[in-house]
Amino acid sequence: MAVWVALDAMGGDFAPQATVEGALMALKSFPELGVYLVGQPEVLAPLLKRRVPKKLEIVPAKEVVAMDESPIGALRTKLDSSIRRSFDLLKEGTAQAVVSAGNSGAVLATALFVLGRIKGVSRPAIATVLPTIRGQAVMIDSGANVDCKPHHLLQFAYMGAVFSREILRVPSPKVGLLSIGEEGGKGNTLVKRTHQLLTESGLNYVGNIEGRDIYRGEVDVIVCDGFVGNICLKLSEGLAEALMLMMAQELRSSRLAQIGFSFARGALKRFQQRIDWRERGGAPLLGVKGVVIISHGRSDAQAIKNALGTALFFVKEEVLENLSRDLAELPSLVQSAQR
Amino acid sequence: MAVWVALDAMGGDFAPQATVEGALMALKSFPELGVYLVGQPEVLAPLLKRRVPKKLEIVPAKEVVAMDESPIGALRTKLDSSIRRSFDLLKEGTAQAVVSAGNSGAVLATALFVLGRIKGVSRPAIATVLPTIRGQAVMIDSGANVDCKPHHLLQFAYMGAVFSREILRVPSPKVGLLSIGEEGGKGNTLVKRTHQLLTESGLNYVGNIEGRDIYRGEVDVIVCDGFVGNICLKLSEGLAEALMLMMAQELRSSRLAQIGFSFARGALKRFQQRIDWRERGGAPLLGVKGVVIISHGRSDAQAIKNALGTALFFVKEEVLENLSRDLAELPSLVQSAQR
Repeated sequence: MAVWVALDAMGGDFAPQATVEGALMALKSFPELGVYLVGQPEVLAPLLKRRVPKKLEIVPAKEVVAMDESPIGALRTKLDSSIRRSFDLLKEGTAQAVVSAGNSGAVLATALFVLGRIKGVSRPAIATVLPTIRGQAVMIDSGANVDCKPHHLLQFAYMGAVFSREILRVPSPKVGLLSIGEEGGKGNTLVKRTHQLLTESGLNYVGNIEGRDIYRGEVDVIVCDGFVGNICLKLSEGLAEALMLMMAQELRSSRLAQIGFSFARGALKRFQQRIDWRERGGAPLLGVKGVVIISHGRSDAQAIKNALGTALFFVKEEVLENLSRDLAELPSLVQSAQR
Repeated sequence: MAVWVALDAMGGDFAPQATVEGALMALKSFPELGVYLVGQPEVLAPLLKRRVPKKLEIVPAKEVVAMDESPIGALRTKLDSSIRRSFDLLKEGTAQAVVSAGNSGAVLATALFVLGRIKGVSRPAIATVLPTIRGQAVMIDSGANVDCKPHHLLQFAYMGAVFSREILRVPSPKVGLLSIGEEGGKGNTLVKRTHQLLTESGLNYVGNIEGRDIYRGEVDVIVCDGFVGNICLKLSEGLAEALMLMMAQELRSSRLAQIGFSFARGALKRFQQRIDWRERGGAPLLGVKGVVIISHGRSDAQAIKNALGTALFFVKEEVLENLSRDLAELPSLVQSAQR
């Protein structure tokens, strides 16, 4: 049976070329996939030329939310935007997932408004998979929530643990709280209070971790607020880039060193690609009633294709169902979300 | 005229061997320096053997603050600790600076209590110099204050700008506020409010910067709270290390690649050393009435030597006097500190 994904065809810096091209690529790669291209038919149809595969349909949406537009404003006034229509398709059961590289604030706000939250979650969060020395770890929240309370971070921890178990296949994920010292007493007020909640959470909580531990792979789930998480991700991207440049400057002197550098640069580039998971395949928004994959605003066709593949994977693996079931079994969490 | 520095000889993971050795090395390198070795004479004297230079004196302090001891507890009860006695020497004018690799919370608390704050500053902050693609930038606060208010971040910005001008010789330092989007409306509540204050500050404020901009060198002063700053620094250290390991894993296959890697590794190692400024020379605590250099707990003799050199440099350059004078000329800042 086909899995149909609603793709916000107008969202992202390189839309609609990248979204249309990405959809066509995905349809070739994933036989089970169907794609609703949501957007302005007069813009989308010409890009398809005569290449209209069987499992691709244009769903009309008159309006486009600009990348720098106010999310709440867009939610209130643009009722026929490509973002809004994509979520409507998901809500009404026509589509089984949404992929968007558009205005991420508007995507978040619309997802919350149209789909609602699953039981036990007061704030949906973005989960990003990071490469580590030992494998992979999930960082949650990576940017959806800038101001958080302790019970929000507790919910992120539960969602991250389910994600780690279901998607990364870690049987009993180790959960760490990002802070500035390993002792439980260290950190800001938010972290100190969260530490207490996590200690009593029943999760495999190993305590505070420091910035230097993120890539060491000693924990499977890194819990932080979206402000800190987003800064960490972007810092990592930027540092890998800066290191490449610094190395290039240093190694300009020797011919042998230059050859060496060309190898090192390849490794750094691959790291950069691995780190920018949104660019590769989109990051899921966990905690809303639906599969939502948020892609990088800079997504090219390849990234859109990967995001559609991720959406398909999430639907097939029943991540949403598992998350909803697991969280509903935690009465204390459900209680905390009612605060 | 000699500059005498009070060295907390009992502070740090490798004290007192590293502190004594570091002091001896510094005295050889810096002819203008004098060092008070503050600590337990029965422990320190044997380490000196017969090598007691003219400008080295042991100043007795009976107690030692453990690395994991409560800072406030230590401040209240250990009145004859090596940390407390070091600051007493500075306060009474016997010494002109303090260097400590000891319990940094206790060093902060004692500095505040004994020396007090300079006019216009409600929260002293740690300034760390980072290498960038274009040169250097100062990150403030790097870990002294985990929970901040907007006017604290404003004060950090002023102190960072003075530091950049006086120490890094940047004529009109560009100040950036670390956030998760470049637009002024993006960020958490703290950052949004601080953005408003910085816009009206009279500083060369360029707006929000993102994590990826830190190492690009587009700003000279990076303003953030100490929780975020500390995580960024430690993440950078850890990522450089992880990249080295990941590269080593990737490049194991080819002989040529291995040669290349040995060059790349050298560059990464140098970056790591540049980044961990505390390890190299200690980071200054700005905003207290005295020159205070905080060294890494893991400081070895070389790091202690460098920290003593940094202290000497700060005294000679009259950083404290310039900072006090510049900040006192900002009535709005002085006002904000009275809140």
